[in-house]
Amino acid sequence: MAKLLNGKNIAKSYRETLKQQVSELKEKGVTPNLTVVLVGEDGASKSYVNAKHKACQSIGMDSVIKHFDADITEEALLKEIKALNEDTGVHGILVQVPLPSHIDEHLVLETIDPSKDVDGFHPENIGKMHLGIDTFAPCTPLGIMHLIKETGIDIAGKNALVIGRSHIVGQPVAQLLLNESATVMIAHSKTQNLESLLGQADIVVSAVGQPGLVSGEHLKDGVIAIDVGNTVVDGKLVGDFDFDSVSNKASYITPVPGGVGPMTITYVLNNTVRACREQI
Amino acid sequence: MAKLLNGKNIAKSYRETLKQQVSELKEKGVTPNLTVVLVGEDGASKSYVNAKHKACQSIGMDSVIKHFDADITEEALLKEIKALNEDTGVHGILVQVPLPSHIDEHLVLETIDPSKDVDGFHPENIGKMHLGIDTFAPCTPLGIMHLIKETGIDIAGKNALVIGRSHIVGQPVAQLLLNESATVMIAHSKTQNLESLLGQADIVVSAVGQPGLVSGEHLKDGVIAIDVGNTVVDGKLVGDFDFDSVSNKASYITPVPGGVGPMTITYVLNNTVRACREQI
Repeated sequence: MAKLLNGKNIAKSYRETLKQQVSELKEKGVTPNLTVVLVGEDGASKSYVNAKHKACQSIGMDSVIKHFDADITEEALLKEIKALNEDTGVHGILVQVPLPSHIDEHLVLETIDPSKDVDGFHPENIGKMHLGIDTFAPCTPLGIMHLIKETGIDIAGKNALVIGRSHIVGQPVAQLLLNESATVMIAHSKTQNLESLLGQADIVVSAVGQPGLVSGEHLKDGVIAIDVGNTVVDGKLVGDFDFDSVSNKASYITPVPGGVGPMTITYVLNNTVRACREQI
Repeated sequence: MAKLLNGKNIAKSYRETLKQQVSELKEKGVTPNLTVVLVGEDGASKSYVNAKHKACQSIGMDSVIKHFDADITEEALLKEIKALNEDTGVHGILVQVPLPSHIDEHLVLETIDPSKDVDGFHPENIGKMHLGIDTFAPCTPLGIMHLIKETGIDIAGKNALVIGRSHIVGQPVAQLLLNESATVMIAHSKTQNLESLLGQADIVVSAVGQPGLVSGEHLKDGVIAIDVGNTVVDGKLVGDFDFDSVSNKASYITPVPGGVGPMTITYVLNNTVRACREQI
């Protein structure tokens, strides 16, 4: 029976460390500031932004939400971001996606100063991560690596299967695992032999959003199982795992909710504290 | 018995296409210019640079070699590169690596204007490639993709095994294969189950430099086998494949020499022509 990788508790404990770092920065006269850019009235986006805002406050950081109407022009939005780049009181900038369709999302993300890009979405930061240079990496993958390391496993040489190839989770977590010398397998919607790949994995990270995609019967005994799935079924949040059967095979498993989710916001805080430290 | 993927012939034919594109640019009054920066007297570097120079000339492009003494300071070298960035007569810039140890290679590569980075080594271009944005990708991986496509295979959903995780070959070719929807497996020196991975591959790309690393007995029938190995043994250039046994299993195989090698330089030309087209 798998041990639970309790993201809520692990995040809570790591936030204490970050809170301490914020205190030390405050003693030097600087309060880390995260400024989140929100465009429009999307309910999910608003609730993510509010969760980040509260998390910042909980560890003593400054958090500012810049809320713009959905009809803001691309030009005006880029001008706002450039102003934030110039503002020495702002250490981290985060643009909540998705953006309205009249705005080029890539262009907006590329306009953020890479040294303030706490989401790790700027091409320069992505490139550096792929070169193995220590830089801002996306927050969910960083949170996943933290959870995997909590198990004490030596990642080098282990077979790691990542299911899903998004730019926010799948691809960067595959890269972080490769940087730690895992043998990496990347599966996605076109993959034809998922069951066989599952049977070879020492670590499986599923980031698809398809409930029941991974069930225990295909897994190796002792696998470390990280569920990044996030689907609402009958009003309940569920992941990609058939939880009971995966639990029977895995050595460690993340629950949904309370697994990867709390780690993501924690790494927004982590990256902002880091940005602040590097800027002063 | 495998068909030979004859890189020499395929490169020759593709260079005719490029030659035509150069003619068209010349008719518009612009000759694509590749400027190669060479530091010091390393024999292998000099011979690579000369090969690129000759290849440029063979399709009517301008090629300039900027040769600096091994003791040039980092500051002076960066100044030279910035001057090339500003020079509208230079369309592609290529810094031959390795550089002397007193020069920070990453810093030099990051100083090249991304729009002139025909090697595809700038973090911004690496990042864009990972985002699936069409940009300059490294030349050997582009040449490998060209060879694979020559076979007519539909890459989507195929199992592609990349052995080696360098930033110049292994990692970018894995990404290009993923961008074409292959299921990608990346093996390297820490991998413990190479034989089992070989047995699953529909496409295998080996970029290690270890003669005999891949032998036919572990391979699936019909595999497409790309050998990027490049080792001199008893005065002869050999790849990573045990050529005879791999030939017996593969549907297509690249020879060494005359497989991937000629494609690499061809894609230096390709990227420079592209840079020129995008700059005018």
